[in-house]
Amino acid sequence: MIVLFGVFIRYNEEADTHWQEFRRENNISSDIENDFYFRYPSFQDVHVMIFVGFGFLMTFLKRYSFGAVGFNFLVAAFGIQWALLMQGWFHTLDPATGKILIGVENLINADFCVAGCLIAYGALLGKVSPVQLLVLTLFGVTLFAVEEYIILDLLHARDAGGSMVIHAFGGYYGLAISWVLYRPNLNLSKRLNGSVYHSDVFAMIGTLFLWMFWPSFNSAITDHGDGQHRAAINTYLALASSVLTAVGISSVTQKKGKLDMVHIQNATLAGGVAMGTAAEFMITPYGSLIVGFCCGMISTFGYVFVTPLLEKYLKLQDTCGVHNLHAVPGMLGGFIGAIVAASATEEVYSREGLINTFDFEGDFADRTVGTQGGFQAAACCVAIAFGIVGGGCVGLVLKIPIWGDPADDNCYDDEAYWEVPEDDESIPPILEYNNHMIHKLPDLYLGCVQGMS
Amino acid sequence: MIVLFGVFIRYNEEADTHWQEFRRENNISSDIENDFYFRYPSFQDVHVMIFVGFGFLMTFLKRYSFGAVGFNFLVAAFGIQWALLMQGWFHTLDPATGKILIGVENLINADFCVAGCLIAYGALLGKVSPVQLLVLTLFGVTLFAVEEYIILDLLHARDAGGSMVIHAFGGYYGLAISWVLYRPNLNLSKRLNGSVYHSDVFAMIGTLFLWMFWPSFNSAITDHGDGQHRAAINTYLALASSVLTAVGISSVTQKKGKLDMVHIQNATLAGGVAMGTAAEFMITPYGSLIVGFCCGMISTFGYVFVTPLLEKYLKLQDTCGVHNLHAVPGMLGGFIGAIVAASATEEVYSREGLINTFDFEGDFADRTVGTQGGFQAAACCVAIAFGIVGGGCVGLVLKIPIWGDPADDNCYDDEAYWEVPEDDESIPPILEYNNHMIHKLPDLYLGCVQGMS
Amino acid sequence: MIVLFGVFIRYNEEADTHWQEFRRENNISSDIENDFYFRYPSFQDVHVMIFVGFGFLMTFLKRYSFGAVGFNFLVAAFGIQWALLMQGWFHTLDPATGKILIGVENLINADFCVAGCLIAYGALLGKVSPVQLLVLTLFGVTLFAVEEYIILDLLHARDAGGSMVIHAFGGYYGLAISWVLYRPNLNLSKRLNGSVYHSDVFAMIGTLFLWMFWPSFNSAITDHGDGQHRAAINTYLALASSVLTAVGISSVTQKKGKLDMVHIQNATLAGGVAMGTAAEFMITPYGSLIVGFCCGMISTFGYVFVTPLLEKYLKLQDTCGVHNLHAVPGMLGGFIGAIVAASATEEVYSREGLINTFDFEGDFADRTVGTQGGFQAAACCVAIAFGIVGGGCVGLVLKIPIWGDPADDNCYDDEAYWEVPEDDESIPPILEYNNHMIHKLPDLYLGCVQGMS
Repeated sequence: MIVLFGVFIRYNEEADTHWQEFRRENNISSDIENDFYFRYPSFQDVHVMIFVGFGFLMTFLKRYSFGAVGFNFLVAAFGIQWALLMQGWFHTLDPATGKILIGVENLINADFCVAGCLIAYGALLGKVSPVQLLVLTLFGVTLFAVEEYIILDLLHARDAGGSMVIHAFGGYYGLAISWVLYRPNLNLSKRLNGSVYHSDVFAMIGTLFLWMFWPSFNSAITDHGDGQHRAAINTYLALASSVLTAVGISSVTQKKGKLDMVHIQNATLAGGVAMGTAAEFMITPYGSLIVGFCCGMISTFGYVFVTPLLEKYLKLQDTCGVHNLHAVPGMLGGFIGAIVAASATEEVYSREGLINTFDFEGDFADRTVGTQGGFQAAACCVAIAFGIVGGGCVGLVLKIPIWGDPADDNCYDDEAYWEVPEDDESIPPILEYNNHMIHKLPDLYLGCVQGMS
Repeated sequence: MIVLFGVFIRYNEEADTHWQEFRRENNISSDIENDFYFRYPSFQDVHVMIFVGFGFLMTFLKRYSFGAVGFNFLVAAFGIQWALLMQGWFHTLDPATGKILIGVENLINADFCVAGCLIAYGALLGKVSPVQLLVLTLFGVTLFAVEEYIILDLLHARDAGGSMVIHAFGGYYGLAISWVLYRPNLNLSKRLNGSVYHSDVFAMIGTLFLWMFWPSFNSAITDHGDGQHRAAINTYLALASSVLTAVGISSVTQKKGKLDMVHIQNATLAGGVAMGTAAEFMITPYGSLIVGFCCGMISTFGYVFVTPLLEKYLKLQDTCGVHNLHAVPGMLGGFIGAIVAASATEEVYSREGLINTFDFEGDFADRTVGTQGGFQAAACCVAIAFGIVGGGCVGLVLKIPIWGDPADDNCYDDEAYWEVPEDDESIPPILEYNNHMIHKLPDLYLGCVQGMS
Repeated sequence: MIVLFGVFIRYNEEADTHWQEFRRENNISSDIENDFYFRYPSFQDVHVMIFVGFGFLMTFLKRYSFGAVGFNFLVAAFGIQWALLMQGWFHTLDPATGKILIGVENLINADFCVAGCLIAYGALLGKVSPVQLLVLTLFGVTLFAVEEYIILDLLHARDAGGSMVIHAFGGYYGLAISWVLYRPNLNLSKRLNGSVYHSDVFAMIGTLFLWMFWPSFNSAITDHGDGQHRAAINTYLALASSVLTAVGISSVTQKKGKLDMVHIQNATLAGGVAMGTAAEFMITPYGSLIVGFCCGMISTFGYVFVTPLLEKYLKLQDTCGVHNLHAVPGMLGGFIGAIVAASATEEVYSREGLINTFDFEGDFADRTVGTQGGFQAAACCVAIAFGIVGGGCVGLVLKIPIWGDPADDNCYDDEAYWEVPEDDESIPPILEYNNHMIHKLPDLYLGCVQGMS
């Protein structure tokens, strides 16, 4: 990695000490117009989503919180380095010098790229080893870079928040791998496949940071000015609307109208996923609400009805339900984007706005909005295809029994890969028993039981 | 909601694709001068305060963490949609087109508006149903918008961080509702009205995010440039000073000089509340320290002495002590603002600074600082009156027994509204007892007890 | 404190109401060029690191989470006030008026200054009283301000992220104090010197917020434009690389290849510490990876091998292992900075870039990069000397038995300074026993035991 960075990667003009000269040459009036100040706050929000958001969202399992946060950390830290290289080669390689020039936008894109792999991890949570995760990430980032190149550069589709590129791809990638790695005897670990009270509260940390910062996710790499502004507003509205439907549907589908934490932790985010493509378009505020409303509903129904069916009939074990949170809302988001793009009019966008929003420049100057809509839809299919086919192949690689995956009765258990502290959460009371100080409760029970028999 | 958004809400010029034309017309030299870049980082901080700050601050109860975080999430997500409409109608409705044009400042204001309702929730925590909370929010946001219109537009008072508009109103609103909903037999739930070790640590997450981001809260909608800068500095200093007095008073008032987590979690924030109005004025750094010092003291004394008295003599059950953290410091903040405004001089502010700070323009060009001080004080009384009267009325509505509120012996308990996982926090040790494998400890106790009798 | 603030501290031009005049005089075209917008997002990130990052990182002990978060909060809130004064006197005192003019950069510097004391707290965690911590902070901030004055102003060394000024100083300061306060009978508290499952998850909150926001830490006060941009990129890369080596070494050194949470919580951050000086230089992306790679390795080895040796042979009890996370990586970071500075060339930096980066202006206009490298190395030695000598003296002060430090068998225990809630994490089942309702388990055990004897 270090060698590859040494050969290929350099700072771009805005991060290089030649910036002052660059400013003068390009007639930039102030340091504040450095791209850093446009994007860095959003970058940090995205960064929080990747490491705290995804990491803590997966801590809901009672005995897999170390694995959730720790492997998420490992995968992401490895993935961003590899992503800088892969995305650099496909997108920003300067053909003259053979160098990749990086700036803050590349860091955001690397975080995005890693998000795809972390989504896939969600489907596999508790059932794979860290080595398998690194392999998954290595191939996942590579597939991502190729798919992104096809979608954004060749098809010239717009996908600022990555409904297609990140969520649909990542979701189907994980599901396909999980399907290949199906474990018929997983119910041996059933006792650990659930939450406890405090693990659910930890998971809410993840949920909330994802939810709050999703407007930054969808607006991080959109156009300066109105593009970022509009994407943030749209995502904010869609998310707010998702919460209401997720809570409503959760209450309706459970017995006695009680709420289920799984739905609150996940389905509330569906609106953000689904706005990934359309957020920068003029979807209008009520359009955003409608998208959030529908996707919150679909996602909650998915958790209630579809996930059990998938497991039963399709042999698909999906720990975090990425099917309902990423795969389906991501796919829908892609098609919503296609429809919104196809129905764009010069009246609403203005001529200049239309060109800026869809980047109808250079080779694509003559493209109509209808054609653009078609290409958007095609892009969505490409993302799904890459996810399913790529995931199938990677799943086969991961099935080779050399990666140290956990036994069927050892899944969802941190003991397999972590030094876990002894579980004396409550300091045992010191009891006197036959003049001996007793510190450990289990011994007491045992003694108590033996004394009686 | 979707219909209302469809009829009324549109993007403003800075979020619309016509931004480039708007820039040229208004001679704006760069995209970075879009209001998004002035306010978005502060907006995200405020967003974190609303969802993580308020949500986790209330997780301190041993068995109401789901309700604290989850209902906070629900209320806030519902409230921001309704607030965009209500605040839009009262503040930013364009009379020509009948549309409300929204941008990032509206999102911040919606978050502010919701904060008032979440404060009220603090007084009612554990004693109301989610449906009651939605009703509380519906009316609370409406009252807020009217009160804000009177205070900011009619009285032309300044209240950037909302000491009066948000905290005094929200605090008294919650207290009045709680007073109407008094439960004489609440001690049936007394076993659950307390914290456990880890729930107190969760609550510290809320405290710290509120504390850290309060400078952003008070500076989020102040004037560009020096206004935001000064508000952030003042709030930072007042908060730092609150921490010291809260710790000191907590130690002095407890037996053996031990610290009480309740004070650390709450009274440390009083300085931020009290600086809500005066933060954008030239209160001077030492003025900020004095405000923080006094309010930290008053708030801690409130927790130690006043809350028990309120419960005993006024029949006022205030779960989170919003009286001490929001109502009183908010009221004080309002009057501090009035005094600081009345004592402003042209010497300190400069002529131009005075006009900018207090917005002495248009109809208010002739107002003197003395008059402004008077209006500030009047505004504070308006906020309190709205809180008490509005809260009383809404309390009567919530008393109608159709909202599914929990029984007296079922308060502070997530079981009422959530699917709570079985509480095997520590995986039970597997003990052998009469050749049977025993998994559940309670059975063991029972067996043990029966064996002896 | 209030009096001192009253005498000395005022707003600077960018936070004062005279800002509009200042703008016109200095020909600043827009409010967005107020330093607030360059630095406030980074400031908030740093703020999160200080209060949530350091606070939660130390919650890993099973019964010292209140002390970790709470005393961290207290120390930091006290320290920032004192730091504004001390740093003001040494750095920004206006000789004409005798006033210290503060703005957002001073707030960041105060946070930095406090970080040094919090690092020292890490070595002493669980073994000192809050009063001792306040004394430690009082002297620590003072020493910091003097040391910073010598390093940055007299030696004219560059140290944007404080490898030397913050980490090396803070680390050795804490270690020296800990050495003086050596407790031979500390193993009486051994039962509490360890983690439980959920306390390790809490600590990961601290780790992740430190890790994510470290790029902001190192770039917060670097030059506008390319300086901040480059520092963020370099730190991001070094951190990513640290994670991989920390995980790798942790797995290799533990039996059965299991990972140790202590390494993941700490050694992953070593790259950020080590980039504190060199981040703003043209260290190149692969240079950053190399730094992160080496320091992640050294830090993990430190936790595995060096800390036990220090305790055994040097009588040095270092609760959080600040030796491995701050002292050594900070020292290395200082020398790396010296090397990178000494090897700077005009070819890489451009003439103008060289002057901007190293501030070769005024009295230092003639300094060569070789000389600069020498001064950087000298600065690192100054920081370490200040830490060790200062820490030794402060340790002697703290040894005076008037500060209420905990007894040897009472260390790592919140009971000493906090009202700790009774530990009925799981609500006890109500059991019937001889017709009495039994609520508390310990009584049951006792009864059970007595019944048998």
